[in-house]
Amino acid sequence: MGSSLWPPPEVTMEVHVKNRDKLLSSLRQHLSESSRPLHGFVLLQGGQEQTRHDTDHIELFRQESYFAYLFGVKEPGFYGAIDVGTGNSILFAPRLPAEYAVWLGEIQPLSYFKEHYKVSSTCYTDEIASVLQQHYHCSGKPLLYLLHGLNTDSNNFSKPAEFQGIDKFDKDLTTLHPILTECRVIKSDLEIALIQYANDISSEAHIEVMRKTRVGMKEYQLESIFLHHTYMYGGCRHCSYTCICATGDNSAVLHYGHAAAPNDKTLEDGDMALLDMGAEYHFYGSDITCSFPINGKFTSDQSLIYSAVLDAHNAVISAMKPGVNWVDMHILAEKVILESLKRGDITLGNVDDMMTARLGAVFMPHGLGHLLGIDTHDPGGYLKGLERRKEPGLKSLRTVRDLQEGMVITVEPGCYFIDALLLPALNSPETSKFLNREVIDRFKGFGGVRIESDVLVTAVGCYNMTKCPREIQEIEAVMAGAPWPPQKISTHVGNGLQS
Amino acid sequence: MGSSLWPPPEVTMEVHVKNRDKLLSSLRQHLSESSRPLHGFVLLQGGQEQTRHDTDHIELFRQESYFAYLFGVKEPGFYGAIDVGTGNSILFAPRLPAEYAVWLGEIQPLSYFKEHYKVSSTCYTDEIASVLQQHYHCSGKPLLYLLHGLNTDSNNFSKPAEFQGIDKFDKDLTTLHPILTECRVIKSDLEIALIQYANDISSEAHIEVMRKTRVGMKEYQLESIFLHHTYMYGGCRHCSYTCICATGDNSAVLHYGHAAAPNDKTLEDGDMALLDMGAEYHFYGSDITCSFPINGKFTSDQSLIYSAVLDAHNAVISAMKPGVNWVDMHILAEKVILESLKRGDITLGNVDDMMTARLGAVFMPHGLGHLLGIDTHDPGGYLKGLERRKEPGLKSLRTVRDLQEGMVITVEPGCYFIDALLLPALNSPETSKFLNREVIDRFKGFGGVRIESDVLVTAVGCYNMTKCPREIQEIEAVMAGAPWPPQKISTHVGNGLQS
Ligand SMILES: [Mn+2]
Ligand SMILES: [Mn+2]
Repeated sequence: MGSSLWPPPEVTMEVHVKNRDKLLSSLRQHLSESSRPLHGFVLLQGGQEQTRHDTDHIELFRQESYFAYLFGVKEPGFYGAIDVGTGNSILFAPRLPAEYAVWLGEIQPLSYFKEHYKVSSTCYTDEIASVLQQHYHCSGKPLLYLLHGLNTDSNNFSKPAEFQGIDKFDKDLTTLHPILTECRVIKSDLEIALIQYANDISSEAHIEVMRKTRVGMKEYQLESIFLHHTYMYGGCRHCSYTCICATGDNSAVLHYGHAAAPNDKTLEDGDMALLDMGAEYHFYGSDITCSFPINGKFTSDQSLIYSAVLDAHNAVISAMKPGVNWVDMHILAEKVILESLKRGDITLGNVDDMMTARLGAVFMPHGLGHLLGIDTHDPGGYLKGLERRKEPGLKSLRTVRDLQEGMVITVEPGCYFIDALLLPALNSPETSKFLNREVIDRFKGFGGVRIESDVLVTAVGCYNMTKCPREIQEIEAVMAGAPWPPQKISTHVGNGLQS
Repeated sequence: MGSSLWPPPEVTMEVHVKNRDKLLSSLRQHLSESSRPLHGFVLLQGGQEQTRHDTDHIELFRQESYFAYLFGVKEPGFYGAIDVGTGNSILFAPRLPAEYAVWLGEIQPLSYFKEHYKVSSTCYTDEIASVLQQHYHCSGKPLLYLLHGLNTDSNNFSKPAEFQGIDKFDKDLTTLHPILTECRVIKSDLEIALIQYANDISSEAHIEVMRKTRVGMKEYQLESIFLHHTYMYGGCRHCSYTCICATGDNSAVLHYGHAAAPNDKTLEDGDMALLDMGAEYHFYGSDITCSFPINGKFTSDQSLIYSAVLDAHNAVISAMKPGVNWVDMHILAEKVILESLKRGDITLGNVDDMMTARLGAVFMPHGLGHLLGIDTHDPGGYLKGLERRKEPGLKSLRTVRDLQEGMVITVEPGCYFIDALLLPALNSPETSKFLNREVIDRFKGFGGVRIESDVLVTAVGCYNMTKCPREIQEIEAVMAGAPWPPQKISTHVGNGLQS
């Protein structure tokens, strides 16, 4: 099969021009409000190619995300500056040795990068100090706004730019990070279009995988089908993250698929598949999970858990709009799931009491979703002094913010039967009373279900950018070969006459 | 289509048991010859997962190669030791937090790793100092043989193991690296079987790509077909290196395909394709290049250059056997190519004079080939005080060794029209006299041809492990749909009666 999306869309560097404009105006506004002078330079260092250990094996380079946001440069070894006073942008390219042309390709002139990346000027990286000093027309040392701040998903700090001659500059390490991160939280129309394309090709690839899934295959074959579809027909060389292709009990391992759990189980009749896979296009990602029965037909137990998660997914999307708090959405999802589990006799008693006992976190230990953009876990979830919650489940939330127009956030409720959580819960007096031990035993080895869509917050509500079959009958139909999206019988065709 | 190779072969950890035995006996022999005591520990540190910059994006982990050689461990965060006195092997596994079971998968007991990786015992990485001291029954500080040495392809040094309590040990940083590297140079039968499988599935994938190549496609679509075939049908999650899918003038860029030259050209009628792609299976790699016309039919100019390279490829393979020096093979390849170019009126004059003027390096600036194994550029090319040559072409050789039985080495002659080399050669009095400027002008934009096979040195000669169509008529037939390998018409069928 091919794809209706081929060829992939042209990418315009206008997206990064807009990103820079946005940063510039945010930064200037902040400086004005703090009565600070409007001069100095934002300076970012792009990523470098990495070799594997002591060898000359080079891992395929993917740009550092903040640098990608502002400059869109795919090549390694660049720096980029924005003159806070004039708004001019300057790219610094590495000066390549002549033999580069033999081994690695044409050496582009500076003018190529200026035109291609739509910046005001380009120089070489060995000229950073001198060029920035030439551009500086005020007294004293020029001020550099460098990127330094905490990533609240990794607990790592971004590394401020370093270059020969940096001692001739004053450095500000605190102003830039929160302002630039906040810029990334709200997506522009051009950014949204890229995320939409990543969603479109990834949704199509998920459907391709569903259709080709057969008992007896290996999990990694599903990964291979996905990767091939998104690269072959979507031009996506990178994925947002390592594919999670979990079947059977593996689907209760939230971040399955890594090197120590490498998607290598054989697909078994009667098992569920939980496939969390998303392609990236020009740095912007998607993050999509589909759950379905490997043999194409839901059992009643599979329907029970799947519907619980789908109801939560749909309830959240129905409630999302600007001003809504994400913790409330997480709690809503938990509540919908617990109500379903109660109807299925898996849990017993009063749902509000279960919520007080944080029983939801036994079945869904992860957060409901996260900001999505150039990073899968896009930064900015805890800006402006927001604090992480302490309770099980809630402490895993990657943001506790109120929704705002232009945010793209994943909605990914799940329900899992995880021994490492269920056994303690069955043994704790606070939670064991809610758990129907006999029914839960029936779900031993079931694994789990996750449904994940990428949702854009709009002015009045939200828009689901992910276009996968979600209803049980839709999934069964698509897996049996029905077209997707479903073909509607048109009642207004041809010349408008009744047919 | 599927693959005749499915399912991928079972991997036995016996390969690494043998690798350890080999190191142990080499090391003991060396120590005995130097009248040094036969005790202490070889200690290696395995690789760690890496996050991308400040984010929680984890790159798919692939084990450090020396550690993979000795222990075959796919998981990150391990250490491994070999007791020089007893020969016992000890794996040290990371002590995983309880929440690992929720997020990343089952926490395996130490006994699992002992059994799976066939080591004498397993402990935790926080026990390295105490366990090694317990195992040590001699006086004084126990001696650690740590890995420290130069990789002559990258010019990087391997990083010796570090751990809490290392100050209680004496350290030897010089003995281990050359001995362990030399072990890797000569492959065991079990290693050869893995390299053969990587070759088999990659050869098949190259053929699949040839058959699906069409004018108008993008280079990266050829990469995607290759990756899909080797993963889907071969279980190869990693490639040995980033795919080089170069067409037209890109085929003169030796290491095309990286992030700054990302296989994104449209395939054009009349252009050649140069595809350098190889899959890796259980750490062991392949490295294969096929060159063919995109439209499936060689022009006379394409035949001329292709045949020049194929003749060199075949001449080298015909001459390879133990004791033959690799520099001589490089020179043989150059000479065969220059003779062909002379017959094609591209070069003029006496070939021996061209050789003296190093004209071969204008058309083939890279080395003839390199050792292949767990690394694409497997280490050991310049062991035992061997020195790199200074002349163009020869200085690019990744080894200057005499061939030995059990070496696997790539044979990859090429002939390229590289402006950055041809223009200076046309302007230099030493070389311009050999170059037919008018004919060379005809090849502007031609790019280049490379033919690369992985060749095992045997007791009496060599064996080509790569099974791709190489003759012009074979390539044209396969691209037109003929079966590969060619089906022979059997003259002895059925009941043995003449049909
Ligand atoms: Mn997600
Ligand atoms: Mn090679």
